[in-house]
Amino acid sequence: MTDPRVLTVRPTPDSYAWTFGGAAPIARITPGTVLDVFTEDCFAGRVTSEKTLVSEVCEFPFLNPQTGPFFVEGAEVGDTLAVHFVSVEPARDWAASTTVPLFGALTSTHTTATLQPPLPETVWIWQLDRERRTCLFSARDNGIQLELPMDPMHGTVGVAPANLEVRSALVPDAHGGNLDTPEMRAGVTCYLGVNVEGALFSLGDGHARQGEGETCGVAVECAMNTVVIVELLKGVATPWPRLESDTHIISTGSARPLEDAFRIAQHDLVQWLVRDYGFSAMDAYQYLSQAVESPLANVCDTNYTAVAKVRKSWLPSASPHSGLHAQLRERATALR
Amino acid sequence: MTDPRVLTVRPTPDSYAWTFGGAAPIARITPGTVLDVFTEDCFAGRVTSEKTLVSEVCEFPFLNPQTGPFFVEGAEVGDTLAVHFVSVEPARDWAASTTVPLFGALTSTHTTATLQPPLPETVWIWQLDRERRTCLFSARDNGIQLELPMDPMHGTVGVAPANLEVRSALVPDAHGGNLDTPEMRAGVTCYLGVNVEGALFSLGDGHARQGEGETCGVAVECAMNTVVIVELLKGVATPWPRLESDTHIISTGSARPLEDAFRIAQHDLVQWLVRDYGFSAMDAYQYLSQAVESPLANVCDTNYTAVAKVRKSWLPSASPHSGLHAQLRERATALR
Amino acid sequence: MTDPRVLTVRPTPDSYAWTFGGAAPIARITPGTVLDVFTEDCFAGRVTSEKTLVSEVCEFPFLNPQTGPFFVEGAEVGDTLAVHFVSVEPARDWAASTTVPLFGALTSTHTTATLQPPLPETVWIWQLDRERRTCLFSARDNGIQLELPMDPMHGTVGVAPANLEVRSALVPDAHGGNLDTPEMRAGVTCYLGVNVEGALFSLGDGHARQGEGETCGVAVECAMNTVVIVELLKGVATPWPRLESDTHIISTGSARPLEDAFRIAQHDLVQWLVRDYGFSAMDAYQYLSQAVESPLANVCDTNYTAVAKVRKSWLPSASPHSGLHAQLRERATALR
Amino acid sequence: MTDPRVLTVRPTPDSYAWTFGGAAPIARITPGTVLDVFTEDCFAGRVTSEKTLVSEVCEFPFLNPQTGPFFVEGAEVGDTLAVHFVSVEPARDWAASTTVPLFGALTSTHTTATLQPPLPETVWIWQLDRERRTCLFSARDNGIQLELPMDPMHGTVGVAPANLEVRSALVPDAHGGNLDTPEMRAGVTCYLGVNVEGALFSLGDGHARQGEGETCGVAVECAMNTVVIVELLKGVATPWPRLESDTHIISTGSARPLEDAFRIAQHDLVQWLVRDYGFSAMDAYQYLSQAVESPLANVCDTNYTAVAKVRKSWLPSASPHSGLHAQLRERATALR
Repeated sequence: MTDPRVLTVRPTPDSYAWTFGGAAPIARITPGTVLDVFTEDCFAGRVTSEKTLVSEVCEFPFLNPQTGPFFVEGAEVGDTLAVHFVSVEPARDWAASTTVPLFGALTSTHTTATLQPPLPETVWIWQLDRERRTCLFSARDNGIQLELPMDPMHGTVGVAPANLEVRSALVPDAHGGNLDTPEMRAGVTCYLGVNVEGALFSLGDGHARQGEGETCGVAVECAMNTVVIVELLKGVATPWPRLESDTHIISTGSARPLEDAFRIAQHDLVQWLVRDYGFSAMDAYQYLSQAVESPLANVCDTNYTAVAKVRKSWLPSASPHSGLHAQLRERATALR
Repeated sequence: MTDPRVLTVRPTPDSYAWTFGGAAPIARITPGTVLDVFTEDCFAGRVTSEKTLVSEVCEFPFLNPQTGPFFVEGAEVGDTLAVHFVSVEPARDWAASTTVPLFGALTSTHTTATLQPPLPETVWIWQLDRERRTCLFSARDNGIQLELPMDPMHGTVGVAPANLEVRSALVPDAHGGNLDTPEMRAGVTCYLGVNVEGALFSLGDGHARQGEGETCGVAVECAMNTVVIVELLKGVATPWPRLESDTHIISTGSARPLEDAFRIAQHDLVQWLVRDYGFSAMDAYQYLSQAVESPLANVCDTNYTAVAKVRKSWLPSASPHSGLHAQLRERATALR
Repeated sequence: MTDPRVLTVRPTPDSYAWTFGGAAPIARITPGTVLDVFTEDCFAGRVTSEKTLVSEVCEFPFLNPQTGPFFVEGAEVGDTLAVHFVSVEPARDWAASTTVPLFGALTSTHTTATLQPPLPETVWIWQLDRERRTCLFSARDNGIQLELPMDPMHGTVGVAPANLEVRSALVPDAHGGNLDTPEMRAGVTCYLGVNVEGALFSLGDGHARQGEGETCGVAVECAMNTVVIVELLKGVATPWPRLESDTHIISTGSARPLEDAFRIAQHDLVQWLVRDYGFSAMDAYQYLSQAVESPLANVCDTNYTAVAKVRKSWLPSASPHSGLHAQLRERATALR
Repeated sequence: MTDPRVLTVRPTPDSYAWTFGGAAPIARITPGTVLDVFTEDCFAGRVTSEKTLVSEVCEFPFLNPQTGPFFVEGAEVGDTLAVHFVSVEPARDWAASTTVPLFGALTSTHTTATLQPPLPETVWIWQLDRERRTCLFSARDNGIQLELPMDPMHGTVGVAPANLEVRSALVPDAHGGNLDTPEMRAGVTCYLGVNVEGALFSLGDGHARQGEGETCGVAVECAMNTVVIVELLKGVATPWPRLESDTHIISTGSARPLEDAFRIAQHDLVQWLVRDYGFSAMDAYQYLSQAVESPLANVCDTNYTAVAKVRKSWLPSASPHSGLHAQLRERATALR
């Protein structure tokens, strides 16, 4: 990759961002730039064994380190940033997961506050076989060992939020952020509405794999070597993060309670069919009610994230975003 | 099918049940009985064209007619009823869907009460091609026509509830009922905890297909010819409806807000791994957090329903329910 | 009280109802009847000391015994039953409260399901001084003793539900039931929409007092001697339970999540101002936004209940329900 | 007031802050300082008649202008800021309220997303009689005019948030902010945990009065002349905003869904009784369940806010915060 538009970024430990917005850009890039980046895991690399507890080795707010932000030349409020994932590859042969006291879906939390003591804090180290592309689970309480397919993804991808806000990298919302959806994998293009000049894009929180809903609050967390192409769509608004794969168009919504996350994602997909596929809103509502897939992304973060997706082959032919995804796909192939 | 244990039921219009619990059984059956039944659509067959509005031709509570209930000999509180779906076949070559005023996920409702007027009430008639197994959508507002694969299922499957209650056939809860999950298709075994003597099983609400979440509140509704085998597991409790397919074990939870439905389903799947697969609760929590699929069932009914499922091939080898699903699968094959 | 229209009811232990709907009436009464009834506490009188744990002495569904139901002659679907509370007096000089495993607002529950163990099950016996009208709290873990004013109320007041349903006496919903609002005290008239012929009214679950929200799920539970006058408003619909005191009109909503209970109650109060006080809906929305009191009733039951109330002295002069509350108030005074 | 520690602040239009955190302090003050400030209304003073619609004259994020922030000398993470409200007086003889499209409790919103059109945008101008201390409502759709008591309060009081975040002044959370509780009136002390050096306290969003829940999303909004005393409690943590009046101690919780706001507030009040009044957690849980008042604050903002309060006269004698409230009360009296 000697393309002059390839920018390779290997952050030093003190150069990560911990927020969306509020952090100085580490580089200015032009649309079309290929970013070849390393991202540290959500624990900033500090959970390295079953004995290194998050509550002892990590400190709020220094979780979910972000590689970036990148200032995208020409990006203005009302535009859309397109981030195409060329490759997402685990940078180590192990990954960590854990329970975190008062965090997760099957425990009381600081907001779903109860008088019960927290669950035990337990660490699991997963072995990654990057050749066979598997993740090996080893039970803590007995000898069970099981392999799952590797399916690498980024939990956190976003831009600076609107309304002068700065949000923790642990938050998912309209600006993206900690969406924690397994859909954010290689081959996919992510569309993010631009809220501030330069967009201020960053990413982090790699997962070797993750279940839908991220039930215990933590995935198979690992450092990643990731390549993305960053493009800019001028004059196109994107109220909530959208994704496009070869097979699906995908809307996301992040809110509490979870039904509101669902409503946002489904409502956004209706609007997408209206804007790009020629449907009336009522026809889109009916059609999607029969055609949509609705896997959950996370039910543990400060906002919950729901996904609404539909097969492109089930839609009228159209080229959303002037066929940008297909072009990026081709360019990604050429990069390999 | 001349098996003496096959019971064929073709209900007359006045013989449907509209509740779980509270209706007199239409037949007594022994465990192992094959039920070959007709079920009417959720509108009791009254929505037959784009001009027959639910609000004009249907009357509460006469929606979701149930074929049944069936009194299962020997079924007692604390047992589990296993219902294996041999086949689910649309009984007509068309199906109806509609918006219903103040019902659905993308509208205010009687409980999510707002001062806005309801959305328009619109009917869509879908053409079913039972040979090609497709459902044809015709837009109301322009000429869009699109085909979706047929994927027949039952929205409503359940037993009499606990606590002396009688619930409308529109309600999903621990007794099953209007779960509205696309997982309830041919080839699947559904496990339901028995709450009253005889269980009082019934089913209805066939869908030629349905999106995950049933966003507008109504699927591709059609009458069905359905064959199920009803079995009984003595002394096995099932707190929330579970399903088993050839590939997955599947838990469901029904509640509001939606995160509670998610919690119930995920918690139940953790317990399933503890009971039948040798996991500790904490290990199951971790493992499922990375392995689970979490598609939504309905986000429109009086309770919302979430699904949590995991591939059997990703679990230690085990035979939940003494291998009953495999046996029923074989018996179903022999029936064809 | 030798009024021929006074009916005195002292139930035998086996004559309580445990549901709304589904129970045979214990008496037929004409509108205008004064009911002088005894109601047992929510534990059916079985929790009598700090050592009698609910989980050991009570059995589902035999909680919240109802005195009734009463068949009200002439009551038809679409009418409103008016129940005026003449007096609510504790029948014993003690009352019980407790934590119940996996029930209450500050614990995980069967629906807000977590993997944490339940809180300890603890019983508190409150001493009632019926002369001084106080309730004495004695801490279990140290010597703290504190007195609170007695403020007797009924947690459960309702009629048979609509849609052929039968609901546990633990459920609050549009039919009333286990609303658990401290507003249900002597001097108040409660309006309930009639869903079945005869209405099938019952009441129970007396509380010597209760905090707003009933946080731990259980109030200061005691048997009551209660006098109510039952009237009938023909042709007046009441979609959700309403109350009227000398000073306030009061709407209730019961749903999950809690914001939906809030929405229902506020929406209903808007409609009340439109129907009886001459407001447009938008003006009522604005005016109530500045004038309403919104205390919570319960945040622990199967539905949560919110209250919306406004001072009559802050409203245009009007006589909702043809001044029925004032008439019942007078009649109640005459009864003493 | 010639006290050298009185700081008078009359902001110029360009000197307001629009966030908590992220804005440069307008002054440094020492603990004990009396702030005599003017606050503009939530519309930045731009809604001046029934014809000036928010959607036309205001622009996101320039709503809820904050007077401040003030850097409090010596305030460090883990301390508590105490803000005593000496007086809150409307600065004009009128106030404005309005509906805002897709904002409020009885409408769909951007997160409770539906396909229905928004409610009409309507402005009401309230006349304030500052002598008689009344607010006059004039209906828009007919001639209804009604007076309500003036009860001035601040909707927005807060400090910079934790975790490097910057939040819009429209957000209520653990740092305070847009709590919108009528409890925030003259005579009350508000306790806020310090998250950054100097605390960075600000306030705004005066309401001549507000109903509990702020149903339509907007109160009787007016500019205020307000006097507060700012004190510092070293080494005392306050996880969620607390208030203290002469009669009550008051906890708040802000979250979605609303039951989580309730849980936080009730849980915090339990902890308060444990820390300062000698209760065990279980005894506090029981006692508060019978004694607590639970009025809602807002059910419209990005987080909903619930209040949990209990009478001091119902608690064991104690002097929370070393009797600071009583001292501030005395000092406030001397200031008049």
